Amino acid sequence: VGSLRPTIPFLARTNAQGEALWLEALRAAMPQIDIVLFKDLSQNQKQNAKFAIVANPDPLDIAALPNLVWIQSLWAGVEELVKDLLDSAIKIVRLVDPELSNTMAQAVLSWVLYLYRQMPAYAHQQTQRIWHQLPLAPASQTQIGILGLGQLGKASALQLRDNGFQVSGWSRTSTQIDGVSTLSGDEGLEALLSQVDILVVLLPLTTQTMGLLDSVRLSQLKTGASLINFARGAIVNTSDLLAKLDQGHVAHAVLDVFETEPLTVGDPLWLHPRITILPHISAPTNKITASQIVANNVSYFFESGEVPVSVDLNSGY
Amino acid sequence: VGSLRPTIPFLARTNAQGEALWLEALRAAMPQIDIVLFKDLSQNQKQNAKFAIVANPDPLDIAALPNLVWIQSLWAGVEELVKDLLDSAIKIVRLVDPELSNTMAQAVLSWVLYLYRQMPAYAHQQTQRIWHQLPLAPASQTQIGILGLGQLGKASALQLRDNGFQVSGWSRTSTQIDGVSTLSGDEGLEALLSQVDILVVLLPLTTQTMGLLDSVRLSQLKTGASLINFARGAIVNTSDLLAKLDQGHVAHAVLDVFETEPLTVGDPLWLHPRITILPHISAPTNKITASQIVANNVSYFFESGEVPVSVDLNSGY
Repeated sequence: VGSLRPTIPFLARTNAQGEALWLEALRAAMPQIDIVLFKDLSQNQKQNAKFAIVANPDPLDIAALPNLVWIQSLWAGVEELVKDLLDSAIKIVRLVDPELSNTMAQAVLSWVLYLYRQMPAYAHQQTQRIWHQLPLAPASQTQIGILGLGQLGKASALQLRDNGFQVSGWSRTSTQIDGVSTLSGDEGLEALLSQVDILVVLLPLTTQTMGLLDSVRLSQLKTGASLINFARGAIVNTSDLLAKLDQGHVAHAVLDVFETEPLTVGDPLWLHPRITILPHISAPTNKITASQIVANNVSYFFESGEVPVSVDLNSGY
Repeated sequence: VGSLRPTIPFLARTNAQGEALWLEALRAAMPQIDIVLFKDLSQNQKQNAKFAIVANPDPLDIAALPNLVWIQSLWAGVEELVKDLLDSAIKIVRLVDPELSNTMAQAVLSWVLYLYRQMPAYAHQQTQRIWHQLPLAPASQTQIGILGLGQLGKASALQLRDNGFQVSGWSRTSTQIDGVSTLSGDEGLEALLSQVDILVVLLPLTTQTMGLLDSVRLSQLKTGASLINFARGAIVNTSDLLAKLDQGHVAHAVLDVFETEPLTVGDPLWLHPRITILPHISAPTNKITASQIVANNVSYFFESGEVPVSVDLNSGY
């Protein structure tokens, strides 16, 4: 019986619980398909695999599937795969889940409100038993800047706009969003940085964005601006950020992503009074909706023989 | 010249800075009127005053104006005035400012997201250098309950609904809000409490709501529910709340209002790990928009001779 059912390899390096939950969700979304862990693949299955589902895979496992045409990532950010597969013909399809955009937009709104409503300052006052009312500028006079206007950035910009903030956005190539002031290019970036009260980073990690927010760029922020990084740790130069926080040029940073994750116990970032550390929780993938999107991509390939929309290896996303 | 300009007494007990800012905003909104502090009123002006603008006034000052027909409060909550003027014919007009509703609705959303996104737990983890991702239920499966569906409660319910939460609301008399499940009466209150993940208190302080959230009512909450009080301190029985927090029945409380404000330095609430203390900052009055509303009420009275919509002394709001 089994020989008639198509097989999809699942290549994951995650903890056992994560692997089991993903397998369960993927199998529920594709009951007619055998989803098989790499270690359980027969030599024949390895030889025949045209595509695979991956979650932080070992590159050696990918190399052991010689006839791969494409791989479906379960993450939206695929910079590691792009690096590993730069010289390969294998196409990368990243997860594009509207549910993920909704969750990210809500995370952006949540931590923008956290900064706008001065929750870190009130938390500090509480520890000192200080009753002091801080000024509150109207949201309509508070400028939020979004770096990156892909699916996540756009959804975030719209939700901030709908909740009364002034929103500006920056992207590599110019784009239009109703009620949001959009900028692009080098000069556009400088202009945006000089305007915003809160900067939200939602860029993909590419050779262009690696270390983008360094001392020069952070200096272009208004004094007292705050920063939220929900994208990738390496986009922000951490030691430059620490210098700007200690000078008071940047008021506060909310960091959800780091060059090394989990953040090591000895890292000085943990106890910095002007940094809020989050353990990469801004937009957890919903395994159920994500598996349905993967199932749709798989059906599309089975029916049309064509690879779903894949990552441009030059731009990196 | 001055004798032809109408006079309005301004009766305030606030700090000097607050008084000066209010005088400036009120005078800018009513340039054709002399707004005079109580201490600067002539005997004649006291005798002739038909109405006054008040901000936490001394009842003796009100009694020194024998011909008052109505007073305009600069606050939305008027429980002290209602108590002071219960046996008097003076009508109380409270501040009803759409800008105040917007600010309150945003505060409610901000601290609902603070609880929903587990910011207190992540802040604690940070102090312990713990990298641990907590589960996140979808907003669409998270129930927020609002007690009080007046202007502030309604605006808050709508903003929560528009940001993807399940919202239910409770009010003394039944009302309808699109996309919000509304309840009223004693049984309605018990039903609402048993459903909600986060409870937001936006009731006026009246003889009916004083101490409403006591041990019995708090026990009706689901285990692990959280509480936000942005209304008046006396609506929640503090020692009953502390007991429920210590039992873990209530997970966390965000308290912006207290029976005595400022909260005294020695109060044990300050350092409770499951309580977030805010110094009455949820919805600061915007002096500019509020003064314009007062100016409109004053014009209405000058033109029609009728008192603007005033507080029902029986219901207390």
